[in-house]
Amino acid sequence: MNTLQNASLSLLDLAPKTRQAARQLGVISTEVKDRAIQAIADALESAIPEILSANQADCQAAKGNIPEPLYHRLKLDENKLKEAIAGVRDLGKLPDPVGAIQMQRELDTGLILQRVTCPLGVLGVIFEARPDAAIQISSLAIKSGNGVILKCGTEAVRSCTEIVKVIRQGLASTAIDPDVVQLLTTREQTLELLKLDKYIDLIIPRGSNSFVKFVQDNTRIPVLGHADGICHLYVDAAADLHQAIAITVDAKTQYPAVCNAIETLLVHRAIASQFLPAVKDALDIREVELRGDEKTRQILSIKAATEEDWATEYNDLILSIAVVDALEDAIVHINQYGSRHTEAIVTEDSQAAATFLAEVDAAGVFHNCSTRFADGYRYGFGAEVGISTQNLPPRGPVGLEGLVTYKYRVTGNGHIVADYTGANGKEFTHKDLDRSSNSRKAL
Amino acid sequence: MNTLQNASLSLLDLAPKTRQAARQLGVISTEVKDRAIQAIADALESAIPEILSANQADCQAAKGNIPEPLYHRLKLDENKLKEAIAGVRDLGKLPDPVGAIQMQRELDTGLILQRVTCPLGVLGVIFEARPDAAIQISSLAIKSGNGVILKCGTEAVRSCTEIVKVIRQGLASTAIDPDVVQLLTTREQTLELLKLDKYIDLIIPRGSNSFVKFVQDNTRIPVLGHADGICHLYVDAAADLHQAIAITVDAKTQYPAVCNAIETLLVHRAIASQFLPAVKDALDIREVELRGDEKTRQILSIKAATEEDWATEYNDLILSIAVVDALEDAIVHINQYGSRHTEAIVTEDSQAAATFLAEVDAAGVFHNCSTRFADGYRYGFGAEVGISTQNLPPRGPVGLEGLVTYKYRVTGNGHIVADYTGANGKEFTHKDLDRSSNSRKAL
Repeated sequence: MNTLQNASLSLLDLAPKTRQAARQLGVISTEVKDRAIQAIADALESAIPEILSANQADCQAAKGNIPEPLYHRLKLDENKLKEAIAGVRDLGKLPDPVGAIQMQRELDTGLILQRVTCPLGVLGVIFEARPDAAIQISSLAIKSGNGVILKCGTEAVRSCTEIVKVIRQGLASTAIDPDVVQLLTTREQTLELLKLDKYIDLIIPRGSNSFVKFVQDNTRIPVLGHADGICHLYVDAAADLHQAIAITVDAKTQYPAVCNAIETLLVHRAIASQFLPAVKDALDIREVELRGDEKTRQILSIKAATEEDWATEYNDLILSIAVVDALEDAIVHINQYGSRHTEAIVTEDSQAAATFLAEVDAAGVFHNCSTRFADGYRYGFGAEVGISTQNLPPRGPVGLEGLVTYKYRVTGNGHIVADYTGANGKEFTHKDLDRSSNSRKAL
Repeated sequence: MNTLQNASLSLLDLAPKTRQAARQLGVISTEVKDRAIQAIADALESAIPEILSANQADCQAAKGNIPEPLYHRLKLDENKLKEAIAGVRDLGKLPDPVGAIQMQRELDTGLILQRVTCPLGVLGVIFEARPDAAIQISSLAIKSGNGVILKCGTEAVRSCTEIVKVIRQGLASTAIDPDVVQLLTTREQTLELLKLDKYIDLIIPRGSNSFVKFVQDNTRIPVLGHADGICHLYVDAAADLHQAIAITVDAKTQYPAVCNAIETLLVHRAIASQFLPAVKDALDIREVELRGDEKTRQILSIKAATEEDWATEYNDLILSIAVVDALEDAIVHINQYGSRHTEAIVTEDSQAAATFLAEVDAAGVFHNCSTRFADGYRYGFGAEVGISTQNLPPRGPVGLEGLVTYKYRVTGNGHIVADYTGANGKEFTHKDLDRSSNSRKAL
């Protein structure tokens, strides 16, 4: 085992090493994994001064050369770092997602089928500035039994190199091969990584919309994440308008730069003339720029929204507004322009709510609450890898559970298929068995 | 609604129609769906003469122009057709995969999170000769609430055109828009279909390995299926050799053309000299051609296996054999050459079995039984869409459950995130609620 980084190794040498190390990690007991996670936290704690000093060097080099918000994400202080380390310790306390028996069935006497969760293998995670992401992702990967190849942005190279070195040192004192965690630092390696479908089982890109799209277009490996977060709030004819105003303000302004903030407000025409001026007053206080369709602008004197507005994730204090004639029109608009992330309705009409929740095609469909609740922590998942807007599972906020897959185990005592075929073939019993006795039995 | 086929429509016109029809289908009750499935079966039953005559025309045109096995798959007789129709009726009796509440959690008082299964949307299914596949797939799609765009091989155009016409006629008498089922018949449309990631949510290719690979390489849409089925049987030092012989014969010869048949036999050296001659005798009776590595050929006088043999799915009565020094070597060989389909060990040593089942990376890991059990019907799934060798779920034999995804529903009464942030923020309760009372409540 090698506690230093394999900086001199090419990705093609490094990826098989990670896969091999991940194979071993995949069958390690929960206790050993959790001890290793505490060892990582200990190592990081001891190395706080070194990590902060590496981060300071990154920040000095980046200051003025990268946009302000990126700089803020890059900058670590002791508090932020300690919080990340506390997150690692918390992760150690979550249930192990590996080894859960999801199904147990007798196919015939002595022939037992089980479906058991197991790690995916190796994750490829590409992220921008935030060095604390390296801490969070490495520990999530280990907890779920996966290897991980991290690729950080160039601006965070010194911080991430130090962090990954410390994590690997922490692992060196445990039963887990430090090669389960690797760091790439050059742009060329990103493209190379996306081609390694033989060694990487899931790509998790964390960055701008255009970057995520680039990743989706350039790999055959499954991608977990979302390019756009174009979320809507529909205020129905039967809405409680006070509630609707509070939810609009929260969903738009509580944190406008995140994916679960709304970009478009759809308003039923029956309450438009009453609701729109009131919601405008509330949004004006937060300095939200409004852009409206023609019907909205008959009520509010605001800038006109263009076709482009309906398809734009502002990530900013801008909100487009359209007046719709009916619930059905709101659903059509959302299914056309939404990014299948999170969509909400405000209404006291339970039938309208049921129709909206059923017919809107999105990972999250909300009734009388803010879209901002769409989040792994708020859902109680303990940790979140990201939010997926793909249709196939894992969908929506993805916790540890989304980093595992399953395999079917069948055990018999000499059973062969020939005995079950032809006129006198045996019949299968297909009897579901109780899982409770050993639902968390290790692999 | 239009009961004729949209033959004159381009795929770009047709796909949005299917999506729209599928959106309606997605929220239809179980009862209505099941009645529609019976209506399809009735319509097919009434049209047996027409379908058989269309098939006869296909067969006449194909006779001598396509390989014999393909011709057999193309040819329908009354029995085969009636069996397919009986399969449709059976499907109507299976539980609805849509609307299952997988999770129910109170986030805070009055703020409830539910995870509910829902259809994927529209399936794109590309298949070769077998016209009965059109029947099976259409009814699976409807049962799972999905639209489906079928593309059949040119050799089966007449049969499939007739079948899809009848299915759509059957649907016309129900609440389901016949546009949920569409048929494409030209090769150009296949490529076009693969590009429609805006309208198609899952591609299911059914055909040769090279065809599946072609599909995987030419689409951004998730693909359900497997290119190769390179399965192994490992006979351990502690194997019951009688059992091992029976399982080898079954796994290789019971139906050699299918994906869950074995291609390679791995034998522990400790029992090789006793086992190999015995298994050869049994395989000779079935006229299986054997190809061995050097150690095998020290015991059996058979043809040498080349590097290519280990990576080949023969789909035929050919078996490659290697002698390994240890369980670990068998696992390494399988993880290198296997296609993550189904892998089996024969052993009386439960520790060796546990290691094999844990460390082998495949959708199915089997102990003391034939790999041929890897099948949706044998697993008790009622119907099978295919077997997926991808790592992410759905993995292995995929039944109706694999054709649905889920969405998160959150209902509150004016809840906003701002109340849960900052120093005096409210705390989430994250209390799991009982699902049993309404676990199958409709959307």
